[in-house]
Amino acid sequence: MRMSRYFLPTLKENPAEAQIASHRLMLRAGMVRQGAAGIYSWLPLGLRVLKKIEQIVREEQDRAGALEVLMPTIQSADLWSESGRYDDYGKEMLRITDRHGREMLYGPTNEELITDIFRREVKSYRDLPKNLYHIQWKFRDEIRPRFGVMRGREFLMKDAYSFDLTAEDGVKSYNAMFVAYLRTFARMGLTAIPMRADTGPIGGDLSHEFLIIAETGESEVFFHNKFNDMSDNFKVSGDHATIVAEWTEPYAATEEMHDEDSCSVAEGELVRGRGIEVGHIFFFGDKYSKPLNAVVQGPEGPPSAVQMGSYGIGVSRLVGGIIEASHDDNGIIWPEAVAPFKVGLMNLGPKKEDCVEFCDKLYADLEAAGVEVLYDDRKDGAGAKFANMDLIGLPWQVAVGPRGLKNGVVEVKNRATGEKRELTPEAFLAEMAA
Amino acid sequence: MRMSRYFLPTLKENPAEAQIASHRLMLRAGMVRQGAAGIYSWLPLGLRVLKKIEQIVREEQDRAGALEVLMPTIQSADLWSESGRYDDYGKEMLRITDRHGREMLYGPTNEELITDIFRREVKSYRDLPKNLYHIQWKFRDEIRPRFGVMRGREFLMKDAYSFDLTAEDGVKSYNAMFVAYLRTFARMGLTAIPMRADTGPIGGDLSHEFLIIAETGESEVFFHNKFNDMSDNFKVSGDHATIVAEWTEPYAATEEMHDEDSCSVAEGELVRGRGIEVGHIFFFGDKYSKPLNAVVQGPEGPPSAVQMGSYGIGVSRLVGGIIEASHDDNGIIWPEAVAPFKVGLMNLGPKKEDCVEFCDKLYADLEAAGVEVLYDDRKDGAGAKFANMDLIGLPWQVAVGPRGLKNGVVEVKNRATGEKRELTPEAFLAEMAA
Repeated sequence: MRMSRYFLPTLKENPAEAQIASHRLMLRAGMVRQGAAGIYSWLPLGLRVLKKIEQIVREEQDRAGALEVLMPTIQSADLWSESGRYDDYGKEMLRITDRHGREMLYGPTNEELITDIFRREVKSYRDLPKNLYHIQWKFRDEIRPRFGVMRGREFLMKDAYSFDLTAEDGVKSYNAMFVAYLRTFARMGLTAIPMRADTGPIGGDLSHEFLIIAETGESEVFFHNKFNDMSDNFKVSGDHATIVAEWTEPYAATEEMHDEDSCSVAEGELVRGRGIEVGHIFFFGDKYSKPLNAVVQGPEGPPSAVQMGSYGIGVSRLVGGIIEASHDDNGIIWPEAVAPFKVGLMNLGPKKEDCVEFCDKLYADLEAAGVEVLYDDRKDGAGAKFANMDLIGLPWQVAVGPRGLKNGVVEVKNRATGEKRELTPEAFLAEMAA
Repeated sequence: MRMSRYFLPTLKENPAEAQIASHRLMLRAGMVRQGAAGIYSWLPLGLRVLKKIEQIVREEQDRAGALEVLMPTIQSADLWSESGRYDDYGKEMLRITDRHGREMLYGPTNEELITDIFRREVKSYRDLPKNLYHIQWKFRDEIRPRFGVMRGREFLMKDAYSFDLTAEDGVKSYNAMFVAYLRTFARMGLTAIPMRADTGPIGGDLSHEFLIIAETGESEVFFHNKFNDMSDNFKVSGDHATIVAEWTEPYAATEEMHDEDSCSVAEGELVRGRGIEVGHIFFFGDKYSKPLNAVVQGPEGPPSAVQMGSYGIGVSRLVGGIIEASHDDNGIIWPEAVAPFKVGLMNLGPKKEDCVEFCDKLYADLEAAGVEVLYDDRKDGAGAKFANMDLIGLPWQVAVGPRGLKNGVVEVKNRATGEKRELTPEAFLAEMAA
C-alpha cells in the first residue's frame, strides 16, 4: 500500500483525552477515532490489526473443533427473562424498544441465545459434544467508558459455548478451550497467564482468566516466576488435562483472588506485576440449560439438562492489550503475527527520479513476493518518515536514500531490537519473503 | 468437515412461516434460524456462504482502490441532527437512549458518520480522491419484516463512500464503483443489470440499482434482451466511462421507473422479468458535506465542500438473492464461487469397514489437496443422504457405495446439470484439485 493513497491520519502530539499508552498510540497512529463515548471507528491501519487478531482466534477455535456461527447483535428480552438475568444485568445492558413496543437489547454476551438455538435443534446425546462460537460486536453500557478500546462500550468479542452430556465431559471441553487459549495468545507473541477467577454474573464454579503481563496493566497480579520459563518454552504436547494441570499448578492470582496469608510461594519466586485480562473461560454446568430447558436424551435414563461452559476472548481489547505489552517511547512495536504490515518502506529521496524508480521496483518486488508492505512514497522529509514508522511500529523498516543507492544497499531496521543493517535489495527481499 | 461433527440441522418439511424459496431453503438447509422478527442467527453452513460473498465484495472493493474501515453499529444522534436526517428517517430507525439519557441509534446507513471522520482528518485536495468502505451490520426497523434475510431488520451491508474535489472527479469515482459492481456480481455467477433508480432518502440525482434476475424476484423489471448477451460475455475491458456507457445504453427499468409510452424498445426485444435489488449506488455531490461542513482546500480559490457518492451492496441479502436465482424443486444450486463447500462426499456403506476406510481416505486426500469438502459419514440411509445433498446444493456430489467400491469407481454428480459420471477416485481428485 502506498501511503500517498492510504488513509493514515497520524498525530504528532499526544491527544489530551488519552490516559494510557495504547489509547494514546492508537489515536496517534491513526488506528481508531472515537464516534461517541466508548464507541470507535476503526481506520484502515487499525482494522488490519483487528482482522489479524480475529483470524488467529478463529484458526485456534477451529483447530480445537469449535464450529463458527454468527448470532445477531440485537436480541429479544424474552430469553433473558426466561434465564432470570434480564433484571440482574443492570444498567450495563443497553435496552431497546422497537417500533412495536417490544423489549429488545444489544447483546452483552450470548449464553441465552446460543442455548435457545441449541435446545431447538439438538435432542440427543449422540449429537454431543458440540462447541459453537462466534466473533461478534457486543455492547456494555459502561458508566464511564475509558482507556480507548480497552474499556469501550461497543467491542468485538469471540465467545464460544460448549455443550456436553456429563460434567466430566464438560470439563474436557473446558480443558480443550484452555489449551486453545494458550496457543492463541502464544501465536500473538504474548505471555498470557491463566489465573483462577471469580465467575461473576456468568456463574458456575470453575473459571480462569487469562492475563497478559504489561507494566501498564490495569490490575495487580501475583504469580510464580516459573511462568516466565513456561511461556518462553510453550509447546502443546501431551493431552489437554496434563497441559491444564501444568499451567494451573504454579501460583497465579489477580488482586481480588490473591491472599498474602495463604500464598505459599517463596518471596524470591513470587512476581508482583500488572496484568490485562484478555480471556475468560467458565464451566457452569446447567445454570442456563436448566431454566431454558435445554435437555438431551441420554443413552439410558431420563433426559437431562446439558452441561455448558462459555469462553470469551476480547478481540478488540487485545489490540490495546498488545500495545500495552509492546511499545516504547517512540511508538508501537507490533509482534509480527499481528502487525498491520510486515515491512515499512521509506523513500528518502522522493524528489529524485532514480530513488523513486528504485523504491517503486522494491515495492513491486515485495508485493509480488507476497510480503505486506506499506510504502511511504510521500514528499515529507526523512525525519518525519522515520518518526512516523517508529510510531506505527511495523516490524521491519527499510530506508532507501541517495547515498545507499550509490552503494547499492538499503538500510534495514528491526523495530523491536533497533538493530540496523545494510543489505542489498536482493538480500533484503529474500529475507522478507522467507 | 465431517457431518457427524457438524452442526447442520436440516429440515425435511417446508416451514410454514416461509413464503419464498430462499427463506424456505435457508431454513431447511440449516443455514439460519430466526432469533426475533427479522433477526437471524447464521449457523455454520449459512455463515460460510455469507463469508464467501463478503470476501468477493471486499476483494473487488480493494481492487477498485477503496480502503476498508469499520464504523461501529451504534451512533450518536447528534450527527443526524446536523445533517437534517434525524427526523426524516422515521420509525425505520432504531432509536436508543443510553444510561446517561443520550440519544443514540443503530446505524441504518453511514453517510453522516463517514463524513464526520473525513472532515476531521482531511483538509486538502491533495489527499483526494478517497473511497472508504466498510462491511458492517445495519438495522432498519421494518414494520413487517419478512422473506427471511431478504427483508430482515438486522442485515449485513457493504457501504462505500467516495470523496472528490469536483463533480467531474466524483462521477469518475462513481463509474469506478459501477464497474466494480459488475465484476462483483459476475464473480458470484449472477446476471446483475444496472437500472436507473430513484434516489429516495439518500438523495442526489445520479443513481443506479443493480438487480439480479430471478423468476421469484420481488419486483417487475423491463430490460432490453441485449443484457443477456452482455452478461454472458462480461469482460472488463476499456476504461470505466466506456464500460458504464455500454451498460447504461440499453433500456432497463424497474416497475417504478418504467414508462410504457416512452419505452422505445421493440416488443420482441423487451424482456419482462422479475428482479431482486442487490446493490444501489448514488452520487449526491455536497448533500452531506455541506451541512456537515466537510470542506477541503482546493489548488486555488476558497475551500469547497467535497463531492460525495455512496455505494451499497446487501451482503446478507445476496445469500437469499442467489438462492432465488439458483434453485430447483430439490434444493439450492450454489454457484461454485459462493458454495459453502465445493464437494459433498457421501458414504453409502457406513456400516461396512472397507467403505468407511475408502471414504476416510478420499476425504483426507481432498482436504490435503485444499478442496473444501463436507463428508456425510453418518449412519443414515442412501436416500436421505442424496436428498440432503440436493437440498444443501454443493456443486459436486460424490457417492461411494459397496458396488462402486468393487469396480474401483465413485459416482460423481454435478448438482447444477444433474449429469452423473463414474470416475476412479484418482481422476475425481485430480478434477476437483485442478
